[in-house]
Amino acid sequence: MKQETILVVNGPNLGVLGKRQPEIYGRESLEDLPRLLHNFLGKEAENIYLDIFQSNSEGELIDELEMATQKDCQGIVINAGALTHTSLALADCLAWIDIPCIEVHLSNVWTRSERIRHTSLIAKHCQGVISGFGLTSYILAIIALLHSSLSK
Amino acid sequence: MKQETILVVNGPNLGVLGKRQPEIYGRESLEDLPRLLHNFLGKEAENIYLDIFQSNSEGELIDELEMATQKDCQGIVINAGALTHTSLALADCLAWIDIPCIEVHLSNVWTRSERIRHTSLIAKHCQGVISGFGLTSYILAIIALLHSSLSK
Amino acid sequence: MKQETILVVNGPNLGVLGKRQPEIYGRESLEDLPRLLHNFLGKEAENIYLDIFQSNSEGELIDELEMATQKDCQGIVINAGALTHTSLALADCLAWIDIPCIEVHLSNVWTRSERIRHTSLIAKHCQGVISGFGLTSYILAIIALLHSSLSK
Amino acid sequence: MKQETILVVNGPNLGVLGKRQPEIYGRESLEDLPRLLHNFLGKEAENIYLDIFQSNSEGELIDELEMATQKDCQGIVINAGALTHTSLALADCLAWIDIPCIEVHLSNVWTRSERIRHTSLIAKHCQGVISGFGLTSYILAIIALLHSSLSK
Amino acid sequence: MKQETILVVNGPNLGVLGKRQPEIYGRESLEDLPRLLHNFLGKEAENIYLDIFQSNSEGELIDELEMATQKDCQGIVINAGALTHTSLALADCLAWIDIPCIEVHLSNVWTRSERIRHTSLIAKHCQGVISGFGLTSYILAIIALLHSSLSK
Amino acid sequence: MKQETILVVNGPNLGVLGKRQPEIYGRESLEDLPRLLHNFLGKEAENIYLDIFQSNSEGELIDELEMATQKDCQGIVINAGALTHTSLALADCLAWIDIPCIEVHLSNVWTRSERIRHTSLIAKHCQGVISGFGLTSYILAIIALLHSSLSK
Amino acid sequence: MKQETILVVNGPNLGVLGKRQPEIYGRESLEDLPRLLHNFLGKEAENIYLDIFQSNSEGELIDELEMATQKDCQGIVINAGALTHTSLALADCLAWIDIPCIEVHLSNVWTRSERIRHTSLIAKHCQGVISGFGLTSYILAIIALLHSSLSK
Amino acid sequence: MKQETILVVNGPNLGVLGKRQPEIYGRESLEDLPRLLHNFLGKEAENIYLDIFQSNSEGELIDELEMATQKDCQGIVINAGALTHTSLALADCLAWIDIPCIEVHLSNVWTRSERIRHTSLIAKHCQGVISGFGLTSYILAIIALLHSSLSK
Amino acid sequence: MKQETILVVNGPNLGVLGKRQPEIYGRESLEDLPRLLHNFLGKEAENIYLDIFQSNSEGELIDELEMATQKDCQGIVINAGALTHTSLALADCLAWIDIPCIEVHLSNVWTRSERIRHTSLIAKHCQGVISGFGLTSYILAIIALLHSSLSK
Amino acid sequence: MKQETILVVNGPNLGVLGKRQPEIYGRESLEDLPRLLHNFLGKEAENIYLDIFQSNSEGELIDELEMATQKDCQGIVINAGALTHTSLALADCLAWIDIPCIEVHLSNVWTRSERIRHTSLIAKHCQGVISGFGLTSYILAIIALLHSSLSK
Amino acid sequence: MKQETILVVNGPNLGVLGKRQPEIYGRESLEDLPRLLHNFLGKEAENIYLDIFQSNSEGELIDELEMATQKDCQGIVINAGALTHTSLALADCLAWIDIPCIEVHLSNVWTRSERIRHTSLIAKHCQGVISGFGLTSYILAIIALLHSSLSK
Amino acid sequence: MKQETILVVNGPNLGVLGKRQPEIYGRESLEDLPRLLHNFLGKEAENIYLDIFQSNSEGELIDELEMATQKDCQGIVINAGALTHTSLALADCLAWIDIPCIEVHLSNVWTRSERIRHTSLIAKHCQGVISGFGLTSYILAIIALLHSSLSK
Repeated sequence: MKQETILVVNGPNLGVLGKRQPEIYGRESLEDLPRLLHNFLGKEAENIYLDIFQSNSEGELIDELEMATQKDCQGIVINAGALTHTSLALADCLAWIDIPCIEVHLSNVWTRSERIRHTSLIAKHCQGVISGFGLTSYILAIIALLHSSLSK
Repeated sequence: MKQETILVVNGPNLGVLGKRQPEIYGRESLEDLPRLLHNFLGKEAENIYLDIFQSNSEGELIDELEMATQKDCQGIVINAGALTHTSLALADCLAWIDIPCIEVHLSNVWTRSERIRHTSLIAKHCQGVISGFGLTSYILAIIALLHSSLSK
Repeated sequence: MKQETILVVNGPNLGVLGKRQPEIYGRESLEDLPRLLHNFLGKEAENIYLDIFQSNSEGELIDELEMATQKDCQGIVINAGALTHTSLALADCLAWIDIPCIEVHLSNVWTRSERIRHTSLIAKHCQGVISGFGLTSYILAIIALLHSSLSK
Repeated sequence: MKQETILVVNGPNLGVLGKRQPEIYGRESLEDLPRLLHNFLGKEAENIYLDIFQSNSEGELIDELEMATQKDCQGIVINAGALTHTSLALADCLAWIDIPCIEVHLSNVWTRSERIRHTSLIAKHCQGVISGFGLTSYILAIIALLHSSLSK
Repeated sequence: MKQETILVVNGPNLGVLGKRQPEIYGRESLEDLPRLLHNFLGKEAENIYLDIFQSNSEGELIDELEMATQKDCQGIVINAGALTHTSLALADCLAWIDIPCIEVHLSNVWTRSERIRHTSLIAKHCQGVISGFGLTSYILAIIALLHSSLSK
Repeated sequence: MKQETILVVNGPNLGVLGKRQPEIYGRESLEDLPRLLHNFLGKEAENIYLDIFQSNSEGELIDELEMATQKDCQGIVINAGALTHTSLALADCLAWIDIPCIEVHLSNVWTRSERIRHTSLIAKHCQGVISGFGLTSYILAIIALLHSSLSK
Repeated sequence: MKQETILVVNGPNLGVLGKRQPEIYGRESLEDLPRLLHNFLGKEAENIYLDIFQSNSEGELIDELEMATQKDCQGIVINAGALTHTSLALADCLAWIDIPCIEVHLSNVWTRSERIRHTSLIAKHCQGVISGFGLTSYILAIIALLHSSLSK
Repeated sequence: MKQETILVVNGPNLGVLGKRQPEIYGRESLEDLPRLLHNFLGKEAENIYLDIFQSNSEGELIDELEMATQKDCQGIVINAGALTHTSLALADCLAWIDIPCIEVHLSNVWTRSERIRHTSLIAKHCQGVISGFGLTSYILAIIALLHSSLSK
Repeated sequence: MKQETILVVNGPNLGVLGKRQPEIYGRESLEDLPRLLHNFLGKEAENIYLDIFQSNSEGELIDELEMATQKDCQGIVINAGALTHTSLALADCLAWIDIPCIEVHLSNVWTRSERIRHTSLIAKHCQGVISGFGLTSYILAIIALLHSSLSK
Repeated sequence: MKQETILVVNGPNLGVLGKRQPEIYGRESLEDLPRLLHNFLGKEAENIYLDIFQSNSEGELIDELEMATQKDCQGIVINAGALTHTSLALADCLAWIDIPCIEVHLSNVWTRSERIRHTSLIAKHCQGVISGFGLTSYILAIIALLHSSLSK
Repeated sequence: MKQETILVVNGPNLGVLGKRQPEIYGRESLEDLPRLLHNFLGKEAENIYLDIFQSNSEGELIDELEMATQKDCQGIVINAGALTHTSLALADCLAWIDIPCIEVHLSNVWTRSERIRHTSLIAKHCQGVISGFGLTSYILAIIALLHSSLSK
Repeated sequence: MKQETILVVNGPNLGVLGKRQPEIYGRESLEDLPRLLHNFLGKEAENIYLDIFQSNSEGELIDELEMATQKDCQGIVINAGALTHTSLALADCLAWIDIPCIEVHLSNVWTRSERIRHTSLIAKHCQGVISGFGLTSYILAIIALLHSSLSK
């Protein structure tokens, strides 16, 4: 059975996940994703390779997404952090890439009081948005990607 | 093994799902949810009872949610339809109910051009939000509810 | 000659028409509509059945409109009252119903000083809007519906 | 001495008063109103009949208010809950009813951080507004209604 | 029987009606109005003289309306085109003229996405507004004018 | 029985009460308050001393409120007049004073068309707000203050 | 003694002054200006020639102002009517003309409820603004022009 | 011949007129007003007593205006300085005083870039507004007051 | 070789180009355009006829553009002056004309501090926009028009 | 060595410093300033006289600042309290005074949630702004004033 | 003849030009610029060296622009992509660089429906703006740069 | 005595300090900071190591701040340049770092006319803000950091 590669793109401040404000974002880090996926999918998880990327720089995130179009990548899960709300350049990038992409957030952005956290410049270029379930948000996104690619 | 009951609450215009604009919302209806859940979870789905409710009336939706607090209900999946964006009364209701609740949407609301579709009055009283995956949005929400109740 | 059925849907506070602030809304009530239609169209009016519905509940209005799609109904005249300006759910309902529909208002909404009265959430899902002619607004809408169905 | 009837109208989520977020709204419920009135007015309270109505449905609230015009009712106390801030239809209803009406709120709405809680669509069709005194807000409103009807 | 004169005033870009974007505005032009009126009213139309005026200049439109007060004119139908939304000077003019006036639009302005198209500076100085029925909007306005002048 | 002192603070233009626009504000003045209180409470009023203060100056109002913290004062009733809507300094003052305070208004501010009249900078630092009952607003506030201090 | 020429420019709807809404604008017309000036200045008025121009067209007003720069004109009094609030083109014109110019209005624009009436696009290109004194506004402007040209 | 008293009220920072930013406000001070009036009116000025008041305090300005109603005062000229744009309390005061009042400004407020300078809270309670002519603004206001009191 | 006709349309205040504020707009006038074009294109310019039109009236500009559709005109260069920012009617006109059109401005509109100068109602109906190069803006537009018509 | 005088101006509610909400503003009062300055500067502090002024009245603050221009004062430190955000009159005053002035705040105004606290009307007329360091904000301002006066 | 160097700076997503959404942006890429320039200018193009730079990172774009001030560079053509609308840092950089700079866009930004695309933070620091002509926008900018440097 | 390390973080365009617009930002550069600190503190400055970092890239600034948490760093002084107003990602970073941090600006940002310069996304995650004193702003921040770390 063919292996699926999912690119997991993470924006600013997500490299410190597990250290930054754990009362909000939890104590697990991005490295825990493969293990978590296994918890959910069991053996099915063995056919999925998670290509996890993180950068604090908008430019490097766009570079990575551009490169993904040259590789064999079946889906993208993106947590753009604060750039979700401010980066029109990232939005422009997702607009032309034709790999299925899902936006995720660790916290439920609607519980944050700052209004700008309730907007997303990139969401309209994604298949859907999942927010509020910690790292499980990523897992749900991967399940959704697998499901739609299987059902094709 | 104990059966879990999940209340699936649906707001205005969702009773015609499968008939209304199928090019946007798909041809499946709310009755297909148990079958879809079985597709995803297999046998595990047998322990889950989906209590599906739909009303076009904001008042009846609040009545139903108030009654849920009197029943043995482990989680709520709510698709409030257009009331997501306008009903402060529904938001007030979810604010005091202490059953875990997840907001779902069939379509990716961010691809709609009307700005009011990008806001949610009820999201801040939910655990998380999942939008854009058709009826699969409901399934992902149920998986998330099961996961967090199992992990307690 | 085949009889045409026109559904005349009326929202909150229109059940008291003729009693409520008659200096603004006039002394005639919804029951006067068939007689008024006869004044305008003479014998031609005999082939038109006006199915007049009124409710103060947004949910019941949507229920009625959904049911109209199951009946033999050639057109809809809707005066949604204050819901014209606030009900996104009603707008969503009209968006998918494919019976020709015309929005009417008794008073000229533009003479009201409240800004929200100058907006309509439902108008973009109607063929047109007629406002300012008292119950004659309904009659003009019916004439327009007949005219376009005849000219097909 | 003639008995006065005061209609006490309550909107969404007020049926669960005493259960919902008691740290904000207190533990007393609408049924405690007659007893509270007696505490304030003593024997004078015996001449006052409180007709207490609650519904989660905007439409039923308007129905009730329309019916009040047909009954012998000397005043209205209305706590429209979240509909205070969103229901133009309720405002339209109060606009034409000529029974003296007072808007009340349990909590001081100005201490809520959401801006929409600082607005009222219905207040301008009421004699006055009393907010922030728990169920005592209702009692103060009844005293004000009695006072002005006596002084006529 | 006395002949009625109706002034039909048309603003910028309406002189090219039938040529400009026919997929939106239809292929008929202002010259077709008398024939259309005859279709609707039959012989009754012979007593009505339509005085059709068009100009691309705000100043000339105001000049024409000022002159109408000097002539024997029983009603005005005005389609101010884009000036509907921008001309405070035209609004000032209609404010003082005491000939009954109805605002019409060919297309349903609410289906246009530009927000400025949903406002009208002149509507509050008119008896009513009819929009969305192509040239039939003019005919409905004339019927309304006749009706109200007859019923006096 | 111990006497209660209630400080009644009045802002700009309230010194001319009874003279200024009596059709809006009534013909009674602040000096009528003790008599009115007696009308409502009878003998109970004898134990209440109303310390009535009025100034047109924001600074003097703050001075007075600061001094109240040095005196034996059981409650504050404040009608800040136009400063209600504009004085952040007065709001800051009420924020730190820990004497129970109630905001009152003579007229129902929501019936005034100017939008700024619908906001209050000071309300969130008060126990509650009572508006629309003329001088009776003050009396209701005093009753509320007495009630809550007795019930402690 | 040299005669001064003052150009008095009047925008849309001012040609009907004396006829239009006399309860707001008075019964005198622009032709009364020389007589009024004489009332104020007596013999001094004989040295002043008032060149009175009125047009409903923005373009013709700009044409006239451009021509004034070619003539011997010592000052301009301009009442641009509704164009005061909407014509950026007129503002651009006044920006480059170096004849002293004063903006006048018949009514006190601040008593009009429409917000747009409280703005002026042209005022910043004028020496000053005088509003609220009927035709006396023009006279005061002429006195101001004479005064500043004499004091040079 | 009876002497007229005109109260000339000046708000914050106008006591330093002649010292403050003379390049904007000129070098003359309030004391020069009687002499300037004489320049304009000649002998007629002898019958006019200018009662000139200045204070930096909003409260004292309101006190002074309230006192004017007790004196023999035929008109008020007010330059409220920055309070023009911020003092709702001053506006409330002018609203009930029935002495004719004219708002003046030394500079043309429309040439200032700050937007708040283009609004006036008090103007709607004045007969008119004159701005941009230095101390001559006051003189023109006095002429207007005299003119309208003579023409009564 | 066939001659190309380019219509060069100029709005309000552009007739005085060279005279108006030369420090901003330069000293050259519209008549210098053919010479300038020759400087850029040399002999190639001989095949291009520039049909230069200027009017201060929105209506005449629309008239001219409508007439262009009847003539042999290969492209339009339009500098609508202040109407760029305010004329929805001009925008409507350009929307239906199918001659290639380019919007130009003499100055860089973004260096002007007024916000309205940064918007254009007509730009979306043009091929492109060139602003900031004085009369060279026109030349660049003509080069662009020639280039795209040659490359067809 | 010459002694420097620094005027330290404090607005509303700062007289109660040390008493008001000490958890936000600390327990030290304005009288502690000389001692604090000594802690920072040691002997150098002996040459500096701090002229500390506090008033709750906008008018008195302006009076004091106007008087400072008559005295030998080398610098101003101003904490205008809530007037920072609302007093255009105070801003006008600082605009013309040519003594170096620094705005200070005890708390970091950006951590307050009310948006108006993030604006300052007076800051643009000061040399700089220092906020968030309790009474140390004043000391840093004095150091900055001394530094720039020494470096002249 | 001396060679001119023009720096052509390109922001995010422009490296994929020719691949990204070719239906909007065309199939040519940045490498085609020298050839295109030759098409327009012929031999004259040989004296121009185009130094083409692209980066997805705001920081690297600013680095490059800072370095340009150290090199022999006669002009800058900048297409900042999405950063045009969001990067204040890029604007700050262009503000101090004194090499002539022109902003270009491939598409006509005014045809994009998102409002933020109609603003430019950097335009006011450029000589002019050219948008809507594909890669020809760059060529027109280079012609304009050459023209103004020649005419010096 | 233990040496303190202060990290001095500088955002875009601050590397060219001393070269960029010296009339606004002065001629000194970041390298002058240690010398300036010595001027203020004398020998005390020898115990303080200033770790000065500058980058034009948001990502690199966040990288540096994340690394600071791994080093022995007693305080942070940050001048984020234009990113102060636009970078939510930088704000998120400062939100979780627990090293005391002070925001500084060279110029008084309130004297800049662009409104966005009056906001700070990062200030609420800092101890305080100092703006307007050129490089002395940094020195005052360092003094404040030392003072608070000493007083612990």
